[in-house]
Amino acid sequence: MAEVAIVMGSDSDLKVMAKAAEMLEKFGIGYEMNILSAHRATDDFVVWAKGLEEKGVKVVIAGAGMAAHLPGMCAALVPMPVIGIPMHTTSLGGRDSLYSIVQMPSGIPVATVAINGGANAGILAAKILAANDAELSGKLKAYTEQMRQENLAKSAKLQEIGWREYLEQKG
Amino acid sequence: MAEVAIVMGSDSDLKVMAKAAEMLEKFGIGYEMNILSAHRATDDFVVWAKGLEEKGVKVVIAGAGMAAHLPGMCAALVPMPVIGIPMHTTSLGGRDSLYSIVQMPSGIPVATVAINGGANAGILAAKILAANDAELSGKLKAYTEQMRQENLAKSAKLQEIGWREYLEQKG
Amino acid sequence: MAEVAIVMGSDSDLKVMAKAAEMLEKFGIGYEMNILSAHRATDDFVVWAKGLEEKGVKVVIAGAGMAAHLPGMCAALVPMPVIGIPMHTTSLGGRDSLYSIVQMPSGIPVATVAINGGANAGILAAKILAANDAELSGKLKAYTEQMRQENLAKSAKLQEIGWREYLEQKG
Amino acid sequence: MAEVAIVMGSDSDLKVMAKAAEMLEKFGIGYEMNILSAHRATDDFVVWAKGLEEKGVKVVIAGAGMAAHLPGMCAALVPMPVIGIPMHTTSLGGRDSLYSIVQMPSGIPVATVAINGGANAGILAAKILAANDAELSGKLKAYTEQMRQENLAKSAKLQEIGWREYLEQKG
Amino acid sequence: MAEVAIVMGSDSDLKVMAKAAEMLEKFGIGYEMNILSAHRATDDFVVWAKGLEEKGVKVVIAGAGMAAHLPGMCAALVPMPVIGIPMHTTSLGGRDSLYSIVQMPSGIPVATVAINGGANAGILAAKILAANDAELSGKLKAYTEQMRQENLAKSAKLQEIGWREYLEQKG
Amino acid sequence: MAEVAIVMGSDSDLKVMAKAAEMLEKFGIGYEMNILSAHRATDDFVVWAKGLEEKGVKVVIAGAGMAAHLPGMCAALVPMPVIGIPMHTTSLGGRDSLYSIVQMPSGIPVATVAINGGANAGILAAKILAANDAELSGKLKAYTEQMRQENLAKSAKLQEIGWREYLEQKG
Amino acid sequence: MAEVAIVMGSDSDLKVMAKAAEMLEKFGIGYEMNILSAHRATDDFVVWAKGLEEKGVKVVIAGAGMAAHLPGMCAALVPMPVIGIPMHTTSLGGRDSLYSIVQMPSGIPVATVAINGGANAGILAAKILAANDAELSGKLKAYTEQMRQENLAKSAKLQEIGWREYLEQKG
Amino acid sequence: MAEVAIVMGSDSDLKVMAKAAEMLEKFGIGYEMNILSAHRATDDFVVWAKGLEEKGVKVVIAGAGMAAHLPGMCAALVPMPVIGIPMHTTSLGGRDSLYSIVQMPSGIPVATVAINGGANAGILAAKILAANDAELSGKLKAYTEQMRQENLAKSAKLQEIGWREYLEQKG
Repeated sequence: MAEVAIVMGSDSDLKVMAKAAEMLEKFGIGYEMNILSAHRATDDFVVWAKGLEEKGVKVVIAGAGMAAHLPGMCAALVPMPVIGIPMHTTSLGGRDSLYSIVQMPSGIPVATVAINGGANAGILAAKILAANDAELSGKLKAYTEQMRQENLAKSAKLQEIGWREYLEQKG
Repeated sequence: MAEVAIVMGSDSDLKVMAKAAEMLEKFGIGYEMNILSAHRATDDFVVWAKGLEEKGVKVVIAGAGMAAHLPGMCAALVPMPVIGIPMHTTSLGGRDSLYSIVQMPSGIPVATVAINGGANAGILAAKILAANDAELSGKLKAYTEQMRQENLAKSAKLQEIGWREYLEQKG
Repeated sequence: MAEVAIVMGSDSDLKVMAKAAEMLEKFGIGYEMNILSAHRATDDFVVWAKGLEEKGVKVVIAGAGMAAHLPGMCAALVPMPVIGIPMHTTSLGGRDSLYSIVQMPSGIPVATVAINGGANAGILAAKILAANDAELSGKLKAYTEQMRQENLAKSAKLQEIGWREYLEQKG
Repeated sequence: MAEVAIVMGSDSDLKVMAKAAEMLEKFGIGYEMNILSAHRATDDFVVWAKGLEEKGVKVVIAGAGMAAHLPGMCAALVPMPVIGIPMHTTSLGGRDSLYSIVQMPSGIPVATVAINGGANAGILAAKILAANDAELSGKLKAYTEQMRQENLAKSAKLQEIGWREYLEQKG
Repeated sequence: MAEVAIVMGSDSDLKVMAKAAEMLEKFGIGYEMNILSAHRATDDFVVWAKGLEEKGVKVVIAGAGMAAHLPGMCAALVPMPVIGIPMHTTSLGGRDSLYSIVQMPSGIPVATVAINGGANAGILAAKILAANDAELSGKLKAYTEQMRQENLAKSAKLQEIGWREYLEQKG
Repeated sequence: MAEVAIVMGSDSDLKVMAKAAEMLEKFGIGYEMNILSAHRATDDFVVWAKGLEEKGVKVVIAGAGMAAHLPGMCAALVPMPVIGIPMHTTSLGGRDSLYSIVQMPSGIPVATVAINGGANAGILAAKILAANDAELSGKLKAYTEQMRQENLAKSAKLQEIGWREYLEQKG
Repeated sequence: MAEVAIVMGSDSDLKVMAKAAEMLEKFGIGYEMNILSAHRATDDFVVWAKGLEEKGVKVVIAGAGMAAHLPGMCAALVPMPVIGIPMHTTSLGGRDSLYSIVQMPSGIPVATVAINGGANAGILAAKILAANDAELSGKLKAYTEQMRQENLAKSAKLQEIGWREYLEQKG
Repeated sequence: MAEVAIVMGSDSDLKVMAKAAEMLEKFGIGYEMNILSAHRATDDFVVWAKGLEEKGVKVVIAGAGMAAHLPGMCAALVPMPVIGIPMHTTSLGGRDSLYSIVQMPSGIPVATVAINGGANAGILAAKILAANDAELSGKLKAYTEQMRQENLAKSAKLQEIGWREYLEQKG
């Protein structure tokens, strides 16, 4: 069963959105994934969004680029928290997507993550779900510890081989 | 009968939107005016937008600020041209509104005017309607000539009284 | 007969402007296309612009980059609606083009579309012309429906094959 | 008992953070509120952050301005979701705060809301908590309906009295 | 006789343009001053610009705000150097004016000064004219020395009375 | 004796530079203070800068606004560390000053602090001098502890009186 | 004999500065060209700048990137007009160079051209020199006419072969 | 023994940080180098930072990208000067890193260098250490002279072979 619904405005966003899916899989969280443009398939999008609560979805992750309306329109239509992912754009670097998602008016928040921040959207969804799920909470803490260990391992390696060798190995 | 529908997301946008209305009145164009947030009254907004064609509306003018989704959502829902007015904002000066309105994805254009460009939205609507209305076209040309005369009168006054006196009179 | 006049400041803009032409062709709208810099061929440009009304042109699409004056100068010279396309630029990403086109002073609007938004300029022109053309209006609605179907097909495919396979097929 | 912990880097942020508190009160959610700079009282801040889980806190709301490190450092130290509020700043309009909060590296998300978006931070916290609280969920839906009614009332008033009178009454 | 022609797009620019005029007066340089919008009085502007060479004008100073086309259009129409002054704007701080003036395409330069840099435009015009005018050159050097003396006097005063007293006197 | 030399390009920068002086006084560090524009009094500035080492100056604090060349030119002329303070500017908010100071080419660093960051410049100078001054080092630690205590006192007060009363007292 | 002095801060700027030299050669204007960093070879730079007037140099063209101080320091040291060329930069696209050059304080103007605008700097220098040189003035007018003819030829070719063929030929 | 501690948040920053190390090596300054994310290994980072003073470290160089908290958190935890290096980022060009590092609140300065300014960070550290080290001071002056000579050699070569040949040799 899907606790998280992932939605994107175009399949050009899929590479970034897949990072969110990967994180959810890593934490064993069920999800559904759709391509539904708020602009190109408005009615379908509205019907889909209005059905999410009944399907048991607890968190929505929405990604879009440029004049990115999808996350904000999700937030207008669903009662659960909406996480927004601004896509990088060629001309404005993603500032357009970021402003279109984060600058929501009072009353309809979107929980915005970094430009192209797919993985973080997945982790944030997990953190929201973990409030009432001790097992998931444990997995998140293990992930946090794993990141720490990877960091320390890299630092130890740097001490050991020095930056010249390290850079060469990275290529 | 309303040939133009003016819509804004909040009554804090009214002062700018009124400039559009004033222009339409000047050109004798009928209009309706609504406050309908795409986020706070989504269903009402969708119903309203879908009814515009049947009511005979030919152009939509939509203004919104910050993560300004109203003009783009209009463009997704109506067949006629949509003119978007980005509102000035305290923190980002209206860049957020501008990017959220002008950077529409391929397929769903919004005809964007300047930040706080209410008057220009009204004139643009008139230009669109004038394509098949010789009388309106004449009024637009008269307005263009009037702007020219005002400009020339200011320049003549500057020649006459010099910049020191001109600045003093402006206060 | 040309209902739309497309003009650009340089042949380096042609790739983007061609998207507008393609859209017009798709909708069966006649157009003419010129390269006329407002800076390099000013007199020729002015003569051309002043002749558009008599030739029966109903909408102008003007594209330019950097200090992009062409769309605004068109708007100063012609009575019909002018659609402006800001070109992407290497150093400022097209912000220079965008600001030079959208920030028009009161009285002389330019209907601005997204940076490099050639296709949307074509569609916007079609929407303007469709006000009095039921056949064109029908084509536009069919196009809107086609975009919707393509979107839904992509979503269905994503459901069917999953994001890993989808990404691989996209390559 | 506090389900939400509100923290800010300076008492100059209090006016914005109070909007979050007000929202939580409106929804009957218990909260604690602290001023703890990640820079000026680092040790105290770390001790406080590490104690939040045991105290039963479910969501953290952190606000800061300029090089705003507080929300990100919270996210590094606590297992629950962290909502970040970028403060408006005189020189950069809050872009500095926004980028410092939203552009978090992979692994440590901060759920960022709009610049000065205190009220939305409170609502987002409520939405996160409502996942397992039917009563709270009901209150949120009532609030959404209330916003809709207020919007429709304003639109009705505009129809009734017209924009000239409306603007005058607003003063 | 006017060696410099000052032109602005609107009388709202006059306060800044007057700084240029003041500098020219200080250096005893004759000038004419006009308000001629490239958008609102295009034909008049073109006629005026084309007549400048014959009138003996050697330098043009053009100021405009927002989508500031006036300096660039001057540069397209006249053979002499054109100095552009970008006006400060409420929403974008003058970035729109600056980009619209400085980012001219290859072949048609505008000598751009700082946002609201009226005085510097006047000085730059004087420097251009001084190439063949020993007297003017002497006046410019005296002005440079005067600026130096004023600077040194301020520094001496600061040494003498200290920053606390200095700030108090400035009020 | 002056261990720190404070220099600014204009007396309009004095209010911000005074914050640096105040900090130095607080830590008992001798300083001199000058107004010397790199543009208006270049020769005097060069002579002054070249004399600093012999006078025993250990750190330079330079502040300037807009095209802020003073800090970078100091760094080119003196062997000791140069701290740069970008001034807030009306049109660009200080971005112009910041970029002109921080973006120094390889070989000639300027230690840049925040826009209008006078106090931090003073503290940074103190930190540089404290490397070989145990007493000064002690004063800096005391200052750090004082900031911590002030922060904790504010937080305690907030707990005690609540945010409504706190905001009222702040006025 | 050199009427124009070209100077750049680094040989990485040479490609852009060469465009200025090429233009001067095209117009038969003598020039000298130097690499002199205001930061790395300050004394040499100052000596060079102070010697320009006596050598008979009439215009200086200075190019620099990032915290670009060279044009402004030239303007502080020489009596003749200084043209500044902001270099494109990887991180900020040349905004840093542009602001560092154009935002000069009152009294010391730099005639700024577009980012990487080498050719325009050369043309602007020629326009300045042409004030008292009828032959040069004639060459400039011929160049202007040549640009016009090239533009018209491209437009004619587009009419003839259509945009599809035109794009293909451009490759 | 390490007088300088270099720390970075991720090994993707190593290439830039290595430039700082190279400079320190060039000046014979001992350093240690670590990878310690303030977000991923917070406790380890805090322990490390708190131990620096006792180890005899005199200057810290910290580099980070995006929401770059590492330099500011170092400044909060250590008594010695902290030099911050903002990393270039794909989407925002490093503005996010720059603002997150330079815009520190009053009381906790970070000596910020240019985006990707690794070498300058090393030189700035050397300048700070040279205050009490005549030998190091001599090396820095020699380096300054070396930069000057390299600059003059390039200029001489340009005079000799001309820009066409120079550009060809550079390739």
